[in-house]
Amino acid sequence: VREAKKMNPALRRALESVVGPSGVFASLEDRLCYSFDATTISSVPALVVLPRTTEQVSRVVSVCHDEGVAVVPRGAGTGFAGSAVPWQDSIALSLERMNRVIAFSPADLRCIVQPGIVNAHLQKLVAKERLLYPPDPSSLEVCTLGGNVAQGAGGPRALKYGSTKDYVTYLEVVGSRGEVWEVSERSSGYDLLSVLVGSEGTLGVFTAIGLRLVPLPGSWRTFMAYLGSLEEASQAVVELSSRGIIPTVLEVMDKVTLRCVEEYLGRPTHDEAGAALFVEVTGEDEEVKVVSDRIVGTFEKMRSRRFEFAQTEEERESLWVLRRSVSPALARVAPTKINEDVCVPRSRLPELMRAVEGLAQKHRLRIYTFGHIGDGNLHVNLMTDVRDREEVKRVEECADSLFEITLAMGGTISGEHGIGISKAKYLPLEVGTTGMRIMSGVKRAFDPEAVLNPGKIIPPDLTAASKF
Amino acid sequence: VREAKKMNPALRRALESVVGPSGVFASLEDRLCYSFDATTISSVPALVVLPRTTEQVSRVVSVCHDEGVAVVPRGAGTGFAGSAVPWQDSIALSLERMNRVIAFSPADLRCIVQPGIVNAHLQKLVAKERLLYPPDPSSLEVCTLGGNVAQGAGGPRALKYGSTKDYVTYLEVVGSRGEVWEVSERSSGYDLLSVLVGSEGTLGVFTAIGLRLVPLPGSWRTFMAYLGSLEEASQAVVELSSRGIIPTVLEVMDKVTLRCVEEYLGRPTHDEAGAALFVEVTGEDEEVKVVSDRIVGTFEKMRSRRFEFAQTEEERESLWVLRRSVSPALARVAPTKINEDVCVPRSRLPELMRAVEGLAQKHRLRIYTFGHIGDGNLHVNLMTDVRDREEVKRVEECADSLFEITLAMGGTISGEHGIGISKAKYLPLEVGTTGMRIMSGVKRAFDPEAVLNPGKIIPPDLTAASKF
Repeated sequence: VREAKKMNPALRRALESVVGPSGVFASLEDRLCYSFDATTISSVPALVVLPRTTEQVSRVVSVCHDEGVAVVPRGAGTGFAGSAVPWQDSIALSLERMNRVIAFSPADLRCIVQPGIVNAHLQKLVAKERLLYPPDPSSLEVCTLGGNVAQGAGGPRALKYGSTKDYVTYLEVVGSRGEVWEVSERSSGYDLLSVLVGSEGTLGVFTAIGLRLVPLPGSWRTFMAYLGSLEEASQAVVELSSRGIIPTVLEVMDKVTLRCVEEYLGRPTHDEAGAALFVEVTGEDEEVKVVSDRIVGTFEKMRSRRFEFAQTEEERESLWVLRRSVSPALARVAPTKINEDVCVPRSRLPELMRAVEGLAQKHRLRIYTFGHIGDGNLHVNLMTDVRDREEVKRVEECADSLFEITLAMGGTISGEHGIGISKAKYLPLEVGTTGMRIMSGVKRAFDPEAVLNPGKIIPPDLTAASKF
Repeated sequence: VREAKKMNPALRRALESVVGPSGVFASLEDRLCYSFDATTISSVPALVVLPRTTEQVSRVVSVCHDEGVAVVPRGAGTGFAGSAVPWQDSIALSLERMNRVIAFSPADLRCIVQPGIVNAHLQKLVAKERLLYPPDPSSLEVCTLGGNVAQGAGGPRALKYGSTKDYVTYLEVVGSRGEVWEVSERSSGYDLLSVLVGSEGTLGVFTAIGLRLVPLPGSWRTFMAYLGSLEEASQAVVELSSRGIIPTVLEVMDKVTLRCVEEYLGRPTHDEAGAALFVEVTGEDEEVKVVSDRIVGTFEKMRSRRFEFAQTEEERESLWVLRRSVSPALARVAPTKINEDVCVPRSRLPELMRAVEGLAQKHRLRIYTFGHIGDGNLHVNLMTDVRDREEVKRVEECADSLFEITLAMGGTISGEHGIGISKAKYLPLEVGTTGMRIMSGVKRAFDPEAVLNPGKIIPPDLTAASKF
């Protein structure tokens, strides 16, 4: 944990005059609570500011812009890339108090929300009208829509429904000088809406978010398939994909992850299984039956397999809890968990699985693999202890190799978690010199003075260059 | 028609050394053929260059960059915004000779094509594998995929399927300095792919385009509904939309447009009709029956209505020809047709219709209205003669009012045709000062020396500022 060095009393007074004394946290105890996300990276902000209105956000950013103080917008801090970790001497701008639904029009399949609303809260609200907001990151009980849009969050249902970017129709944005502006999916000119989604707080602060909803599917079939090995599981996925069979959810856990989460929840264990697939098919009755029968038929051809079908809504929920508990369960295995979410074309999955096994052996590391295998998006977790410098070095070498292998397979270094700080050094490997030059220019176009979350996505040396 | 003043012999030789003498057109006759698009704007390029490979495109752009000569990329020149009209002294870069399919993988629902392939050619190719490439601009028999991507083209089927931006998965791009780079829907960092789609040749030249395909629907129902008035037609559309009934295609023609295209094709006329709706529902048998019965049921509640159902594939094609012949038919009504494609929220359609009638009376103009009413996207055609200066002045005043009314209704000045030259002066009204400032910066990020299609989208004074 790095402590902020300076705290400008005049800045604090200026911000308090905008949001009131209860809207600024200045004590170290309070600031520590806003110093981290779900990575191992942390840095204590100079102040935490908690606005309640768009106008307050605008004035906060304007004050910081004029004072040359960086602003780091923040949702619930559940990200896996360090995007919401405040740099030293920056202001953490928490949107948690802006958590209202601004408008909800079930007939139009649309809603407009403030950024601080929790994903699961919105899910419950729209479900009452038989509607669904598809993006479902595993942290949905705590993560916020503002953070989801900033990170372009995915989730298990992205396989069928796509990710956050496919559902954002409108944004009200506070720009780097405090200006309030709007952009919608219908806006003319360059598509700035798409650039803002996934921009990790580096291009603007979202103060209102328009979202598209879909009808809640009427029917479901949810089950676990326990297979012989991770490679067998990935071969099953390749076969499904090549035959055009796409469930709503198709998730994998390797042997050690499965064992870990079963023990964490006190569930019966499946010691014989080398991997587990979590499958959900949703839609209309007939469609659900046809698709899930085909999936089960594919798995039945595998050497070893056992099924666990959810028969009731409670059993379905219990399988979802199993899937969503993976991250907290793994957190108990080792003091430090480095979650690398690589993504490869589905046909390369078996090859990636073999490569990950090889890396674990070569670097003498414990690796836990799970994730959205149906999308080719895997979460490869390198277990370590930050205090063990020698092991951390091996972890870093292993991560470097993993990214190189992924890119060589035509994959991407981040399926859904974003770049933030933790992958910024790898981004140039993926997008090249031209991509980095253009992205630096895009950052400059939105935020010429580098006020908004500087140093995230674009590595610091390129950000520095942006001042010229 | 404005003639290019200078032609640099050294530049011509340099370009001929890249693409060969047959790849450069220098005669006035040849250059005239590349001086216009489907607007009334035209300007003769200094030279026309016709590369055959990515490497040639790269070298052409590099030569022009170094010589300070602007490059205007060009597909088939069917655009409605002047985007492909070359400025004086610029090079027209025609991609027409790069018209191959690079890869086609029916099992993956993917293909990669060169930019010069004609839309209808691709449609036929993928239909053989029972697949569909949804975007279908009415010019599809001649327009190219490169142009479609550059303009973010829509078409009647956009109502159900979305527009070009929803189908581009990958682009190989030649940047403003001749650098070749790639971007895909999976690329990490800022979403540069979405910015490139609809960028009208101002940010890069596309040399390979990856596209997503969908399964060809198994069943269809296609018909015309002749209703009492344009307002009644728009009320029917509002009712369908509020009940969540979305066909694949829902197009409108006002009374004069209908009469005009019926006469053009020598079809029986419907003199009693005040407006016509063209409807197609596609999907699986049951779904098509349910949806089209609901639509017919809604229309039957209208005061006056007559139906014409296509019973055979030939009759279906004949109704499509009726719809796609609107633009050529209207071209005979007056020497000059100004096609303004405004778009409003569907609930505001009846109001827009009344406003357009009022504008026609106030400005004493003939206005023909048709278009993608199901999307709220209307093509309002102001008929005139460019040689009649007094009338053209009234047309311009009318267009100004139309855009003001559209924006006041929460609409956009371009549903699908783009900004180009013809709407560049209206763009700031829609996106505001901040939007324009950011878009100018985005242009600068991709094309710092303003080599690629300068002055399009961003009005010239802002482009000039981009040199600093």
